[in-house]
Amino acid sequence: MAAEAAAARPRVALIGSGVIGGGWAGRLVQNGVDTVVHDPHPEAPRRLQEMLENAERAWDRLTLVPRRRGSVTLAGSVAEAVESADVVQESAPENEELKRRLLAEIDRHAPADALVCSSTSGLLPTLLQADMTRPERLVVGHPFNPVYLLPLVEVVAGERTAVEAVDRACAFYSSIGMAPLRVRREVDGFVSDRLLEALWREALWLVHDGVATTGEIDDAIRYGPGLRWAQMGTFLTYRIAGGEGDMRHFFAQFGPALQWPWTRLMDVPELTEELLDTIVAQSDEQADGLSVRDLERRRDDNLVAILQALRSGDDAAGRLLREHEERLLDAAADAIPEVDESEPLRLHGEPVRTDWVDYNGHMTESRYLDVLANASDAFLRHVELNASYLEGGHSLYTAETHIRHLAEAHASDRLDVETQVLAADEKRLHLFHTVRNAGSGTTVATGEHMLLHVDTGSGRVCPMVEPLAGRIGRVASLHAGLPVPEGAGRYIGQPR
Amino acid sequence: MAAEAAAARPRVALIGSGVIGGGWAGRLVQNGVDTVVHDPHPEAPRRLQEMLENAERAWDRLTLVPRRRGSVTLAGSVAEAVESADVVQESAPENEELKRRLLAEIDRHAPADALVCSSTSGLLPTLLQADMTRPERLVVGHPFNPVYLLPLVEVVAGERTAVEAVDRACAFYSSIGMAPLRVRREVDGFVSDRLLEALWREALWLVHDGVATTGEIDDAIRYGPGLRWAQMGTFLTYRIAGGEGDMRHFFAQFGPALQWPWTRLMDVPELTEELLDTIVAQSDEQADGLSVRDLERRRDDNLVAILQALRSGDDAAGRLLREHEERLLDAAADAIPEVDESEPLRLHGEPVRTDWVDYNGHMTESRYLDVLANASDAFLRHVELNASYLEGGHSLYTAETHIRHLAEAHASDRLDVETQVLAADEKRLHLFHTVRNAGSGTTVATGEHMLLHVDTGSGRVCPMVEPLAGRIGRVASLHAGLPVPEGAGRYIGQPR
Repeated sequence: MAAEAAAARPRVALIGSGVIGGGWAGRLVQNGVDTVVHDPHPEAPRRLQEMLENAERAWDRLTLVPRRRGSVTLAGSVAEAVESADVVQESAPENEELKRRLLAEIDRHAPADALVCSSTSGLLPTLLQADMTRPERLVVGHPFNPVYLLPLVEVVAGERTAVEAVDRACAFYSSIGMAPLRVRREVDGFVSDRLLEALWREALWLVHDGVATTGEIDDAIRYGPGLRWAQMGTFLTYRIAGGEGDMRHFFAQFGPALQWPWTRLMDVPELTEELLDTIVAQSDEQADGLSVRDLERRRDDNLVAILQALRSGDDAAGRLLREHEERLLDAAADAIPEVDESEPLRLHGEPVRTDWVDYNGHMTESRYLDVLANASDAFLRHVELNASYLEGGHSLYTAETHIRHLAEAHASDRLDVETQVLAADEKRLHLFHTVRNAGSGTTVATGEHMLLHVDTGSGRVCPMVEPLAGRIGRVASLHAGLPVPEGAGRYIGQPR
Repeated sequence: MAAEAAAARPRVALIGSGVIGGGWAGRLVQNGVDTVVHDPHPEAPRRLQEMLENAERAWDRLTLVPRRRGSVTLAGSVAEAVESADVVQESAPENEELKRRLLAEIDRHAPADALVCSSTSGLLPTLLQADMTRPERLVVGHPFNPVYLLPLVEVVAGERTAVEAVDRACAFYSSIGMAPLRVRREVDGFVSDRLLEALWREALWLVHDGVATTGEIDDAIRYGPGLRWAQMGTFLTYRIAGGEGDMRHFFAQFGPALQWPWTRLMDVPELTEELLDTIVAQSDEQADGLSVRDLERRRDDNLVAILQALRSGDDAAGRLLREHEERLLDAAADAIPEVDESEPLRLHGEPVRTDWVDYNGHMTESRYLDVLANASDAFLRHVELNASYLEGGHSLYTAETHIRHLAEAHASDRLDVETQVLAADEKRLHLFHTVRNAGSGTTVATGEHMLLHVDTGSGRVCPMVEPLAGRIGRVASLHAGLPVPEGAGRYIGQPR
């Protein structure tokens, strides 16, 4: 079985190991493929090593799935690199003459049944295969930087390329986690780079004309349309923007703008009925029966997830989100309601969200702690643990939690929480929440929590300062005479 | 304090509540701003309600920070909508005559000190302010769909716009979480839509010429360059692609490609020394002292987080990743060792998801129970609590949980869980999980859980049946001789 699997894995030769070739090496290693690399540049081994480290670092974060690493061997010549390869991937500089010469050399030395692929970002395969004895095996496989992370690879056939070679290339790229895009017609720049270059030319004009700087142009992408492009392309995005109809509806609204003087480049396709029919039909096929509302929700879920992803790195739109959350936290602090602090406090209530229930319709186990943590947050806001307190370098962290699950909760049930301070000293806060179904009054769960006051810089426990210390102390003393709730102070497995 | 905060919050009037105006309403409501809306379309109230629901749903997922909702009031006329507004935002259809007329009407009825903003995506503010009595307060604030999620807003002044109006507009947009981009020069299409339209025209040519379908063009973006554009724009992306030098190095490599026949539109700016100097200097300023290696790591971290974000929604490049992980898992299945049941079991590991972290970058409290519940599920699968056992009308429900939070976890940290059976009888299972950071080995949390075996029909506790009873009994007897883990059997507040 292992031998069979090994036989199925191709041996790959990489010719050129710069940004693109080194990226290929990174992807292949992370997918368990053994690779031989040839690059005559004196700095090539160092740069290849750096790319392999980048890929290792990225894949360690990308997936928890156990993966076998492929090996990388350096070869002193093209002939040596390709002599026992199943697939050769050429990634030399973007120079037609150089690539033709290299591909002919590869063709002479590679086994007769090896696939030969070029990473060219726009040269026509018909030209690249011109000097090859076996041109039928030449396929363009154009990847995108960083190759070890971006799945797109454009697969393009020349006039003399065999269909079987294209099929083999697509299967190979899929096997290493990529998304092969078969380009229907051989054109300069293929599909993606034609789009990239159009945007790039316009960007250069904007700098040239002093309309925007390079940084402003990048902001005009990464804070807006770029977030959409990461998950839906231009056509599906515009379909949604058009409102509730199909693409014809969009063009009725926005088609005329194509004629506006919005560029230095004004050669625009005429929106004939025929072109419109084509676009409308293709867009319907993409939408695959989903309504604009469905597509909006999918888009929004993706955008939310992407914004949170960027927040985790504190970069781009995620940094804006983090900064804005700090402002919102400040604003929320102003809106504290008056409550009677001598009784258990009712500061939090929320419905059971529809995405919180399991297939039985019950609120899933882990969401109980969502409700309890939200109730603790509401209590902490009440005692003025707000943005300005946090800015002082202190916070309260939960150290221990004890939950009793007492009754089921169902989607859209409204839960209300009652909070009692069991004890507090200068460093600790001991809370008890009772979660009830707001309709029936049934106790659904209880939560008992110990929070510690910490210096957020050092992570060490330290005494609370004002106003928090006084606010918590006041509630604790008012609650000191309340009866201890049933279930407090229990350990797991304690007899009743 | 509350009154002061209320006074600081502007009252906003929205004229037009379609995709853009409704999106503004959603963003304002989620940021606690009270809004009056006028739209004469008979379907406007229904569509506005749908947009408000979209925004509520998105922000519920976007942030854990508590937020006050603003109110939305419908007005029967422009005059009524704007009469006591601090800011008016016009989002009528993209028709110059209509917008000029509306803006003049707004100008007549709004308080003299109100700011008047237009959402136009490309009409010149100098033209839009032509019929206004107070043209100095007209500013273009061009947002991007969905307005409630995308932060970008282009801020453009006309010839007669006062600088103070631009400053006020930028401050207002920042206060509702946006990224205002001050456009230096008034040009048709501003910055972002000039870039969008350039790409869009090229996309239409590709469909027109039969090179690609709309779906293929969208794939050519969302599986490749779109993932880069979500976090870095074009210039910073290309700076990295150029290798280890500055932008001059990139142009030396790729500048000539600008002259290639890659488009139907061939008006290309000449790369004079002056233009090159400008771009090189602006790009250096953007890079802010970071080396290409630093930028590569930042890019890769962002890409990994975005891919994981998309995987959580099982869409676009995230779906490809999930499918590829299944392939990798299959490939690795042969290599999975037999579990030694005489030791604590390692059955579960997962990364800290990017949407699990709070604004401090730490895994939020409630997600610890996600990890623990997932580990319990992995144990239950191991002892054959599977679909066929559930079909028999029995299951194990968690009755009690005790969590100790021992160290912080951060986005993308990998967590591994070790599971020990403390005790089991015919109706009860007592589990103890130790959650460790897979990189450092630090214990991040422990979870102690009591699960009860229930008849799912009646909800009553009942004895386990085979094969579950035997499988759990076997592990329990093998674990009976293991030391009791530190922290087991504790109650909240128990002295050490």
